[in-house]
Amino acid sequence: MFSFDQLAKQFSDKFNTRHFPEAPGSLYHPAEYFLSMGGKRVRPVMCLMGNELFDVIQPDAWHAANAVELFHNFTLIHDDIMDKAPLRRGKPTVHVKYSEPTALLAGDVMIVRAYEYLGRIGMAHLPQIMRLFNTTAREVCEGQQLDMDFESRAEVSFEEYLHMITLKTSVLLAASLQMGAIIGGSGTGNQEHLYAFGKNLGIAFQLQDDYLDAFGDPEKFGKQPGGDIMANKKTFLTIQVSKVATPAQKKELLDLMKEDTPDKINRVLQIYTDCKADQWVRDLKDRYLSLALQRLESIAVTGSRKTPLRQLASFLIQRQS
Amino acid sequence: MFSFDQLAKQFSDKFNTRHFPEAPGSLYHPAEYFLSMGGKRVRPVMCLMGNELFDVIQPDAWHAANAVELFHNFTLIHDDIMDKAPLRRGKPTVHVKYSEPTALLAGDVMIVRAYEYLGRIGMAHLPQIMRLFNTTAREVCEGQQLDMDFESRAEVSFEEYLHMITLKTSVLLAASLQMGAIIGGSGTGNQEHLYAFGKNLGIAFQLQDDYLDAFGDPEKFGKQPGGDIMANKKTFLTIQVSKVATPAQKKELLDLMKEDTPDKINRVLQIYTDCKADQWVRDLKDRYLSLALQRLESIAVTGSRKTPLRQLASFLIQRQS
Repeated sequence: MFSFDQLAKQFSDKFNTRHFPEAPGSLYHPAEYFLSMGGKRVRPVMCLMGNELFDVIQPDAWHAANAVELFHNFTLIHDDIMDKAPLRRGKPTVHVKYSEPTALLAGDVMIVRAYEYLGRIGMAHLPQIMRLFNTTAREVCEGQQLDMDFESRAEVSFEEYLHMITLKTSVLLAASLQMGAIIGGSGTGNQEHLYAFGKNLGIAFQLQDDYLDAFGDPEKFGKQPGGDIMANKKTFLTIQVSKVATPAQKKELLDLMKEDTPDKINRVLQIYTDCKADQWVRDLKDRYLSLALQRLESIAVTGSRKTPLRQLASFLIQRQS
Repeated sequence: MFSFDQLAKQFSDKFNTRHFPEAPGSLYHPAEYFLSMGGKRVRPVMCLMGNELFDVIQPDAWHAANAVELFHNFTLIHDDIMDKAPLRRGKPTVHVKYSEPTALLAGDVMIVRAYEYLGRIGMAHLPQIMRLFNTTAREVCEGQQLDMDFESRAEVSFEEYLHMITLKTSVLLAASLQMGAIIGGSGTGNQEHLYAFGKNLGIAFQLQDDYLDAFGDPEKFGKQPGGDIMANKKTFLTIQVSKVATPAQKKELLDLMKEDTPDKINRVLQIYTDCKADQWVRDLKDRYLSLALQRLESIAVTGSRKTPLRQLASFLIQRQS
């Protein structure tokens, strides 16, 4: 069996090539440009790992892995348009470097390419994989729409935010694992456990991401914290604070949202810690990580086969305790 | 066998229902709104006709027809964003009625829904249909990109324009017929003839569309002619004129492109007729229609089975002679 790092290397070696024809370059260069920005390729590796948990990696798993990675990049190109994001991974986004219409079409052609890889999967698994992939793709769109809807709402409940995050980020991680499991010949019970492992891991990852964006060490986190605060973004931290803060704290937060001063970040962080929202998010992250690992343990294969997936969990989530 | 009108009615009766869940309404209402605008549903009916040319209509043909119509609507929603079109069929476009991000996502979720219908097709035909559908979808994106590229170019050759039109509009008509033929159990030779019938018919239709936009009778054409001229759009007419016009005529056209006067349309039309571009386009349309009908005749089934497809050609194209 391969470690997470080995599979990531193997996938990147295969994936880092052209995925589109040369012409018309006005459409395909922007698409290739975006793919060349790289990324951790977590989802396709999860697909390969889902397969290898049950059997040696099948050719179909590579097709599914390509499809998942291209679908993910399709969502990123379109999300960048919707969010008017100027940069991704330090480079100009497609709509900035080229144009919005071209970015829209480059995204469109990328989801079609994803389905071209999916279509190479053999008869034995294609119908089930198609159903899972399509349902997941629609859920990811729903998650993005809810995320945009929440921006203009004053109050969002914990349940609503959790539902949005699950759709926007967790289901694709979960489905990537399950697609691999299907190709690896897993039964439905084990597939369900593996899906739940991925879903809970994804939620833990988002909890960590929201936490680090506020409290992360810039050296380790790779970027200056406070981005979400400056953008008045809703996060697990703001959701919890809006539940437990005093009227005075709530008023201060509302006032701070109108400000743009460098002081803003520290004053908001102070309210977060006064409300113990930092600890609440860390605890909840650990709880979802535990839930994920429990579901991994429930899968009926020998423990040693699960080592790469435990590595994946450690790679994605740093334990607090 | 059913006539074109009967199949159009049957398809609309089945298709005019919800295609998406209720929630989140912020995503699915815009998608349903666009579908409710209607349309001639030519492509799905072509899919059904392609099937019935060879055999009674199979359940798979209805799935493919739904997929084709949803894919077509996906391209329309995104094209409207790219073209900044305020209206479609007299109603506000999705990005105008809702917002650009919502229109982008409504389009995304519509192509996914198209693949959900495609995924219901049985094992016997799914792989081949997937390949054809995916190739065609990518070609349609290429056509839209080329169309946008040509807008900013001074000169576009006939061959380039024909290639763009083929990708942007003809291949989906052709593929719709072929998907039906595959499901109807047709051999590859007959599939190729039917594809070529659809492709040439699509080119004839576009030639007619370009002609009618300039010279059409507003009573019959349903809209005031001259839209393409006012928008300085490249059409088969402008392509031909740029080939045969005198230097003086070319200069006058360039000057007219900067104008916005009501007189502009008549003066441009005068140059078109002076260059005999109107006759050239009508002749070329008849030639592509003949090419299409020749390919239809080459299909090895009894002539009476081809009656609905001949009706389709008459419905789409009015003969000049």
